[in-house]
Amino acid sequence: MKNKKKLTIGLFGLGCVGGGLYEVLNRSSLIDAEIKTICIRDQNKKRTLSEYILTTDRYAILDDDEINVVVELIDDANAAYEIVSEALKRGKHVVTANKKMVAEHLDELIKLARKNEVSFLYEASVCGSIPVIRNLEEYYNNDSLSSVTGICNGTTNYILSQTNRGLTFAEALSKAQELGFAESDPTMDIDGYDSKFKLVLLIKHAFGITVQPDDIANTGIRNIKPQDLNYAAEKGYRVKLFSHAQKIGKHVLGMVAPYFVPETHFAYTVENEFNAIVVEALFSDKQLFIGKGAGSYPTASAVLSDIAALLFDYQYEYKKEQSVIDTFFTNDFSLDIYLGSSEGEIGLNELSFELEYTRFVSDEYAYKTGRVLFSELKAMDFNKKKHLFFAILPDASVGLSENPRITGAQKNKELIPG
Amino acid sequence: MKNKKKLTIGLFGLGCVGGGLYEVLNRSSLIDAEIKTICIRDQNKKRTLSEYILTTDRYAILDDDEINVVVELIDDANAAYEIVSEALKRGKHVVTANKKMVAEHLDELIKLARKNEVSFLYEASVCGSIPVIRNLEEYYNNDSLSSVTGICNGTTNYILSQTNRGLTFAEALSKAQELGFAESDPTMDIDGYDSKFKLVLLIKHAFGITVQPDDIANTGIRNIKPQDLNYAAEKGYRVKLFSHAQKIGKHVLGMVAPYFVPETHFAYTVENEFNAIVVEALFSDKQLFIGKGAGSYPTASAVLSDIAALLFDYQYEYKKEQSVIDTFFTNDFSLDIYLGSSEGEIGLNELSFELEYTRFVSDEYAYKTGRVLFSELKAMDFNKKKHLFFAILPDASVGLSENPRITGAQKNKELIPG
Repeated sequence: MKNKKKLTIGLFGLGCVGGGLYEVLNRSSLIDAEIKTICIRDQNKKRTLSEYILTTDRYAILDDDEINVVVELIDDANAAYEIVSEALKRGKHVVTANKKMVAEHLDELIKLARKNEVSFLYEASVCGSIPVIRNLEEYYNNDSLSSVTGICNGTTNYILSQTNRGLTFAEALSKAQELGFAESDPTMDIDGYDSKFKLVLLIKHAFGITVQPDDIANTGIRNIKPQDLNYAAEKGYRVKLFSHAQKIGKHVLGMVAPYFVPETHFAYTVENEFNAIVVEALFSDKQLFIGKGAGSYPTASAVLSDIAALLFDYQYEYKKEQSVIDTFFTNDFSLDIYLGSSEGEIGLNELSFELEYTRFVSDEYAYKTGRVLFSELKAMDFNKKKHLFFAILPDASVGLSENPRITGAQKNKELIPG
Repeated sequence: MKNKKKLTIGLFGLGCVGGGLYEVLNRSSLIDAEIKTICIRDQNKKRTLSEYILTTDRYAILDDDEINVVVELIDDANAAYEIVSEALKRGKHVVTANKKMVAEHLDELIKLARKNEVSFLYEASVCGSIPVIRNLEEYYNNDSLSSVTGICNGTTNYILSQTNRGLTFAEALSKAQELGFAESDPTMDIDGYDSKFKLVLLIKHAFGITVQPDDIANTGIRNIKPQDLNYAAEKGYRVKLFSHAQKIGKHVLGMVAPYFVPETHFAYTVENEFNAIVVEALFSDKQLFIGKGAGSYPTASAVLSDIAALLFDYQYEYKKEQSVIDTFFTNDFSLDIYLGSSEGEIGLNELSFELEYTRFVSDEYAYKTGRVLFSELKAMDFNKKKHLFFAILPDASVGLSENPRITGAQKNKELIPG
């Protein structure tokens, strides 16, 4: 049995997840950790937590030497970045659920943690209660991973579950907002940004490379129309928003995009607020993980698992970094899509197709299926094309270009030790 | 980055999994381990592995000081026990896939490993490629686990998938045997023994207590009849063989038994040779893991993950042992079942019911649903009752007796340090 140490926590944020953590920590008997100070934004809100120091001053936590763990659960990614980097610099372990902040500053924060010999854990950032980062990091380190595909955003999955049952996108979004599953400004979710930040972390732990969020295409579900849903329904498909990455030779490609999935696909029955991850590896075949991706308790439970891991000095080791000196991210490939247009053929012609499989045109709506170059798809920014909607076709084979252009600076190199 | 050491492996067994390991290890670049010597039963079989020392003498491995890891992949549980305990005593790490051997000698082998300061890992014993032991051990250590339910045996799941499609049990078994999914003597699988050995390991890592295999009731699917399958089909159920354990207060109960599952149940769509595990916890809610539970590569991949973990001195810590001083296994509870009888009411009356919900009697067949005492069910040994078949009803609530009798000696106590 290794030496255990006392964990004294400074908590930033007492919202949905922070409040959940407070309860989870109090009701779990297996972990020797206590919250000392909580930093909140609004001191005037009524709270009944007299046993803690409540403060609005972040330095009440950062400059307290007794606090050796900072748990960061605030919304504001910029403030979170300042807090987390300050905490790491002061030699405090950090546990965070802020996927945007982590994805945007990943290598820098990993370096800071290594330099200061502390742990920097973020399991709760990706798929809530599903332990996907830990499994990619610990369990799939030796196997030849070929792809990771996830439903990583509960909000869009809820909306799509409703549209698959006959609601329009606008109706489904309203319902999700009423139920508290979607925020008043749902851009981050429905345009696929949230799913993309999570994909950055999945790619890091699956394939060992760091990709900048801007280098990954994210198309959401904002522009899905009843005609697109009809097309899917007629073919027996459901629409799902996937965070997908795969490795082909020494190239990694990845995207957030709507997919048409047939009944035989694992994701077909993953509905509503559930998240799912499929890890495909050469030897272990397909592994599927399903669980609640968001919500107070599931996310707090993931935070708590990270806190518990600190008791045993757990750190991500990023072992795959060492084997990826010549692995690169690229958007230079072609694949098969469906494209729908509410502005007839003029809309369809905005994107050039390498191959055309089918085309349908009526007064009201037009669609086309065929093969496109992904880099052109990315350049168009479909979230802003109100009249267009695309989805990746089932079993779309990916054709890597002959000499694929590398996308972005491949920051992984500088992290390799020695 | 921790210090890495060289792993030199002595491998016992070169069958399906051993052969898979050989290939997986050769094709995986991320792990610094090599097989030095392979101990086989039959020296005369033609083999083309000239790069290794092949031997039929176990001491060629056990007494070789250069070999620091023994990987045990033979069928014979008694020989496996001798090999594994000898290896641990000689200070070698052990990785095994032998669920029967591990389940029958669990505490003794854990003690031996601790005494000799080596690792004793057995992820491949439970659900092949699904990393369930590691997740229970590492990730769910702080959460309040309430239940673990698994489809842990691919053979029976394949057979049941076929019977759910209209084949009789005998036809489905033959088909499974033809395809190599079932052995010529299928007793271990179809009577639920294999599932039970796995359940012993799940209970240890989920709830911290060691239960002797004999103390757990295992009923398989041998006696399922077309009438039972018809009953299930009419209600919209499928039949699944579950390894199930749950914690109620300070009592753990567990069993291997056929269950009727409705379409809304996670397991309904887990078919053929797939395995699945559902972990239910207070805060993280339900987590589902699905993957290939058997076969050469999936199992070898799990073995390889254990070998890779040795590079970082990974050991199971059995942290939950510390919190279970007053946790006990019991069979003293009641639950709701369906009982079918090909010998009419006389058969039904062999088991006394606390409550009766429905009863159907015809010349050919009779069945009854109601509430029974589980300890009476266990005492009857249904695998041997050809004319009877029971299945646990969907959402069967479990009623713990007022002062539940403890089943077996609760060996966990003696393992608590200090």
